[in-house]
Amino acid sequence: MAKRFSVSEYTDGILSGNRVLLSRAITLVESTLPTDQELAQRMLDAVLPYAGRSVRIGITGVPGVGKSTFIEALGLHLVQQQGKRLAVLAVDPTSQRSGGSILGDKTRMNQLAAHPQAYIRPSPAGRSLGGVTRSTREALVLCEAAGHDIIFVETVGVGQSETAVHGMVDFFLLLMLAGAGDELQGIKKGIMEMADAVTITKADGGNETAARRARVEYQNALHLFPLAASQWSPVVTTSSALTGAGIPLVWGVIDQYVQQTQGSGYFQRRRQEQNLHWLHETIREALETRFYARAAVQAHLATIEQQVQEGRKSAFGAAAELLNL
Amino acid sequence: MAKRFSVSEYTDGILSGNRVLLSRAITLVESTLPTDQELAQRMLDAVLPYAGRSVRIGITGVPGVGKSTFIEALGLHLVQQQGKRLAVLAVDPTSQRSGGSILGDKTRMNQLAAHPQAYIRPSPAGRSLGGVTRSTREALVLCEAAGHDIIFVETVGVGQSETAVHGMVDFFLLLMLAGAGDELQGIKKGIMEMADAVTITKADGGNETAARRARVEYQNALHLFPLAASQWSPVVTTSSALTGAGIPLVWGVIDQYVQQTQGSGYFQRRRQEQNLHWLHETIREALETRFYARAAVQAHLATIEQQVQEGRKSAFGAAAELLNL
Repeated sequence: MAKRFSVSEYTDGILSGNRVLLSRAITLVESTLPTDQELAQRMLDAVLPYAGRSVRIGITGVPGVGKSTFIEALGLHLVQQQGKRLAVLAVDPTSQRSGGSILGDKTRMNQLAAHPQAYIRPSPAGRSLGGVTRSTREALVLCEAAGHDIIFVETVGVGQSETAVHGMVDFFLLLMLAGAGDELQGIKKGIMEMADAVTITKADGGNETAARRARVEYQNALHLFPLAASQWSPVVTTSSALTGAGIPLVWGVIDQYVQQTQGSGYFQRRRQEQNLHWLHETIREALETRFYARAAVQAHLATIEQQVQEGRKSAFGAAAELLNL
Repeated sequence: MAKRFSVSEYTDGILSGNRVLLSRAITLVESTLPTDQELAQRMLDAVLPYAGRSVRIGITGVPGVGKSTFIEALGLHLVQQQGKRLAVLAVDPTSQRSGGSILGDKTRMNQLAAHPQAYIRPSPAGRSLGGVTRSTREALVLCEAAGHDIIFVETVGVGQSETAVHGMVDFFLLLMLAGAGDELQGIKKGIMEMADAVTITKADGGNETAARRARVEYQNALHLFPLAASQWSPVVTTSSALTGAGIPLVWGVIDQYVQQTQGSGYFQRRRQEQNLHWLHETIREALETRFYARAAVQAHLATIEQQVQEGRKSAFGAAAELLNL
């Protein structure tokens, strides 16, 4: 890997908005080398007082929904019209397949990528979900410390990463296509219920009527759902990255959510809950990693798992057996 | 607690359908005494080869939806018309409040409770969700070994127990009221997406038109959702425990689901996945319980949690600190 810097070099670089140092720092948190992780933790603790002041937005949707063009359109609106500084991160444990993350193909967002107020970072390749999740959450902190007001965390909408991302953002936006009611769009069960807003993309050309109809259908469907703890009713809009129609409205909806939940205190409370959740998750992962790495467990795990799967041993008895090894 | 029996006394009693022994055995798995737990595990391993042959059905809905009368009506249909043997269990970590579980008030299901082919067991009182979940799952195995063809696992629809129950049943049934679209009914987010069927209850008297309308609304809404791994499209029906209308249909839907998923192999595959899931969950719980019980962790946990919540320490650094104590 590339040259390492000292904690204060990383920290000064990040806080002064140096993009090269920010990128190197993210590479450091992505590293699995113990010495890198130790350095990364000290750097994170040093920048932590300067983090936490952005709005974190999860954006998901299956391939084909026009996610890259939508993110570019919304991102350009934010940097050009709203004067915001924007970072775009991706959580995509399958990004080695390349078809997944739009960010693997930065050229599809070349206008945004070239803008001085925008910073785009693809998902680290070839990592497990847990690994990508951890490093994305740390990259988010670094991007905040570097002064970004808005952070997009993008996922591909077909895996388990959405739940993880939902646990690290303030607002969750789902992109959907019109006319796909019964075609189901490949979105995993449960993702719809996490959405704070849905936008029907590609509402342009001959597609506008269908998009409006889909908007009404989804809005009605979402009304059947229970209100989230935020007391926010999910909003459904239509938008076109091609014509720009509906793009400012998406930002308007997010901004309204932020004002409402900051006013009620929910925004801050949720951040605190998320912090605590990540502490417990990190401990859980570490405990499990250590346990399953034990030689005695590794020697018997496969056999015992098979017996449990086939109903020849109870889960509870088998767990006790493994724990007592 | 009551007299303990030997493993073979419990086993013989359960396998011969002795309800007193079955009840005592469930009391044993609910006990938190280490000696009871050890005995319970040996008993469970002994009956395990005779378990696994029922259809496990999760039933949920908020108080007021008419859950007790619905369960009695569907239960009587199963024992009287279909010749089934039925066990009804409850998962309700709040049952000490009594308002929660219908089974706290057995008199509301007195016809079913009195039927020789039905066995009703309330939720153990005053236990944590994890504790209730574990003992319910073990009670389920005991009821199967005792020869019950159908097992209802009932929850109150307002807490986190639904996800746990969804992970131990084959079919998940949600009870809803008509005319409550925007009133949201108190059902927690995410529960709707777990449903394999929804039935609109109290479709009788002047309420039938509203129930039919609600049925169409929910059916349309569920069509917007992605198909589950079972490849089953959730069905919405109306029913009345008062007139009996629609009660046989609910069973017809469940029966069709069982035939379809047994035919595709999904039913068996899901059972195996659930077994494995419970093995890993049990191990995780044990690891966490041991970790958080350590004296050094207990001494520092509250302070560190507070620092993480307030953003003064990173979750990852704090986790490392606790793990290294």
